[in-house]
Amino acid sequence: MSDYQLIVIGAGPGGYNAALRAAKLGMHTAVVENREAGGTCLNRGCVPTKTLLHSSQIFHEAQTGAHAGIHVEGIRADMNEIFAYKRQISAKLSAGVESLLKSAKVDLIRGTGTILHSGAVEVTDSEGIKTTYTCDKILAATGSVPSRPPIPGLDLPGVMTSDELLEGCDHLYDSIVIIGGGVIGIEFATFYQELGAKVTVIEGMDRLLPNMDRELGQNLALLLKKQGVQVFTNSLVQNVEQSEGGFTVNFTTKDVPNSVSGEAVLCAIGRRPYWDGLFTTQLKPETTGRSLSVDENYQTTIPGVYAIGDVSSKIQLAHVAAAQGIACVEMMCGTENHTSQSVVPSCIYCHPEIAVVGMTDAECKAAEIPCKVGKCVLGGNARTMIADTGRAFLKIVAHAESHEILGAQFMCEHSTDMISQISQAMANHMTARQLLLAMRPHPTFEEALSDALEDLCKKLEK
Amino acid sequence: MSDYQLIVIGAGPGGYNAALRAAKLGMHTAVVENREAGGTCLNRGCVPTKTLLHSSQIFHEAQTGAHAGIHVEGIRADMNEIFAYKRQISAKLSAGVESLLKSAKVDLIRGTGTILHSGAVEVTDSEGIKTTYTCDKILAATGSVPSRPPIPGLDLPGVMTSDELLEGCDHLYDSIVIIGGGVIGIEFATFYQELGAKVTVIEGMDRLLPNMDRELGQNLALLLKKQGVQVFTNSLVQNVEQSEGGFTVNFTTKDVPNSVSGEAVLCAIGRRPYWDGLFTTQLKPETTGRSLSVDENYQTTIPGVYAIGDVSSKIQLAHVAAAQGIACVEMMCGTENHTSQSVVPSCIYCHPEIAVVGMTDAECKAAEIPCKVGKCVLGGNARTMIADTGRAFLKIVAHAESHEILGAQFMCEHSTDMISQISQAMANHMTARQLLLAMRPHPTFEEALSDALEDLCKKLEK
Repeated sequence: MSDYQLIVIGAGPGGYNAALRAAKLGMHTAVVENREAGGTCLNRGCVPTKTLLHSSQIFHEAQTGAHAGIHVEGIRADMNEIFAYKRQISAKLSAGVESLLKSAKVDLIRGTGTILHSGAVEVTDSEGIKTTYTCDKILAATGSVPSRPPIPGLDLPGVMTSDELLEGCDHLYDSIVIIGGGVIGIEFATFYQELGAKVTVIEGMDRLLPNMDRELGQNLALLLKKQGVQVFTNSLVQNVEQSEGGFTVNFTTKDVPNSVSGEAVLCAIGRRPYWDGLFTTQLKPETTGRSLSVDENYQTTIPGVYAIGDVSSKIQLAHVAAAQGIACVEMMCGTENHTSQSVVPSCIYCHPEIAVVGMTDAECKAAEIPCKVGKCVLGGNARTMIADTGRAFLKIVAHAESHEILGAQFMCEHSTDMISQISQAMANHMTARQLLLAMRPHPTFEEALSDALEDLCKKLEK
Repeated sequence: MSDYQLIVIGAGPGGYNAALRAAKLGMHTAVVENREAGGTCLNRGCVPTKTLLHSSQIFHEAQTGAHAGIHVEGIRADMNEIFAYKRQISAKLSAGVESLLKSAKVDLIRGTGTILHSGAVEVTDSEGIKTTYTCDKILAATGSVPSRPPIPGLDLPGVMTSDELLEGCDHLYDSIVIIGGGVIGIEFATFYQELGAKVTVIEGMDRLLPNMDRELGQNLALLLKKQGVQVFTNSLVQNVEQSEGGFTVNFTTKDVPNSVSGEAVLCAIGRRPYWDGLFTTQLKPETTGRSLSVDENYQTTIPGVYAIGDVSSKIQLAHVAAAQGIACVEMMCGTENHTSQSVVPSCIYCHPEIAVVGMTDAECKAAEIPCKVGKCVLGGNARTMIADTGRAFLKIVAHAESHEILGAQFMCEHSTDMISQISQAMANHMTARQLLLAMRPHPTFEEALSDALEDLCKKLEK
């Protein structure tokens, strides 16, 4: 008999949720982890950035509160305390994960796991001691790490990725240059801008958030510029050099050379699947790009070895990893999975918040799916006006013939807590008209959804 | 031919939305209004209170930001400016309503309307000049006004209702006694507590928010007390007396006499339907309590005269008035109405926010409807932990046999923007399992909904 029915490698949101579900379904389960429980999400990703943004938002709102009658004289952001608060929240949540694993009788094995073959994992602990555990199945949930492309100077000491930046700094950078205008770059840009640093964002594509609806990136760039952030799009970084008081980033904007200096440089150009040393050298799993290839059951090309989350998934998001982890172990146990894996929301915590799900107008066009888009600009929305957030809008995409909802793009405060209305509708194949059945409460941000839906129905039904 | 096909009396959310929809459906429409467009909601209700709460929240978060590394030395709430911001928002939104009416070619007639008979409304303008307009149909949307029960001293000069309080004051009250622990009382208590005033709430029933799920009022009382608010439940006000520096409110708590003093007193014990002088003395419409009685088509007992919103509705909420107004004119035009009138959400902007829809556990029991309740306490929810909101929870009620969602009670930040997930599901007769299909984004407040739904499904399916 094996030591475990399932060994999960990696205690991030994919791994720990898979382990918890496996235990619930009766599998004797262990999780191998060489860092803190909770993975990137709790310790170096989603949660730490949201904690930093909580601090910067308080600072920013207090400092700009005069319009609403609130005046501050001495306001100070203590960077040591801000990062301490971030650590405190991560530690609490990480302890929470450990305690969930413990209650579920999942063994948390400390160390680095190496897959010896389909039925054995060798764990090397912090003192180098190796122990081999046998098991029926292995689930790789080792996640991802920030990418550092081979651009000269990106390896200079002091040039950071999100990992290093989140370690903290005892003072607020006077200025920071952020390479990459995707989700990670934008959230850090928001944090430093709100605290008053001089922020520059350099993006290679023609707009910020290039993987999302065009209007989101364009609107965001306008709002950031209004707040004093320098934004360069269509701009390719050539190199980074040390300069007085920091770094100089040299780049070309449509072939025209340009440069910008900053005390700090953050490289935020994405994350790569992380499975360095996961397999013993004899094992050669197939890959898709840098990701582990998996079949529809999340099985890698090595039988009995499964992979979920950032290490193998096209979409690198904590909730996707969790959903895949749960689906994978439910499949192992022959239990029905109840989450729609094809409806994937995505959120950005800038201001106003951005939340999207499903297809954009442009994606439908490219796929030759006939669609209509309902839109509402929140200029007349009471709460948006009160919060004075800058231009906010909601877009909802539906199939022109079936009227089924295909996607939505929201840029509006609280939209991260609104998007599931659309996901839920998509997962249940609902039409625009069905969503309009609901009386939406006043005064909320989300009441504008009714206006967007009315606009959509008008276009669908004419 | 009549002057108008429809005359709406009252340009609040019920009246103006009805007029806009009527115009869209081709009716020649006028709205009669003797105050600002937008009614109570925009000028003396929902919107002003949310604007005040925006200011007090900035103040409070800045003052308590040390936990997150933000320190303020001098912070000042300028009451004149806070109330000026409130007036500015109301004025903008009111102008927006006027402009919507104008674009829709709805005539806004300034003055007080009196219904002479089914086909004629007399309007008296601010100079006392009377003009009579003929019409095919009349819609009364005259709303409500704050109640002042006949308690000795409640009529003393300086004892306020929300109307007077919202007029503003040049300084922050040192202390305020709020009579009534319902929605209005709680929102003002939150505002003054956040700004640092000494707040007392006196409620006649056994808990705050007595019309809602028991746990909401109980949890709210605990949180308010922790923040220094004095809460007296089961307490009946005997009288209010002028005393040094303000007023003394004498009350009994379960027959034991008690008293509390404050610089200001707010009477927030509800609102009464307002239709004083709406009908000429010859017309005697039937009433239900103090409300105008209406049939299923919103018609009063006077043929051709309809009524919607606070003046006739059991539920006094802006979005209910708007939905009824739209439904009423759609019925007049023989157009199908698309909003579920029976699924009514309700929100309170305390912290954490409260949002409810449909039935509670206790209401199901009383109606002998078999139900199960799924619950999630947000102790482990990342954003709740970061925002440090105090105890937050979500409850979802479903039919024990059909598994259809029957209601929900949320106490959690952003819940006012989350409740429509449930309303939408209820309006479409969806089951708990269907709502679980959606992958919810991390890290959000609303991801806890999946936990509540998992708990619910576990109870339903065992």
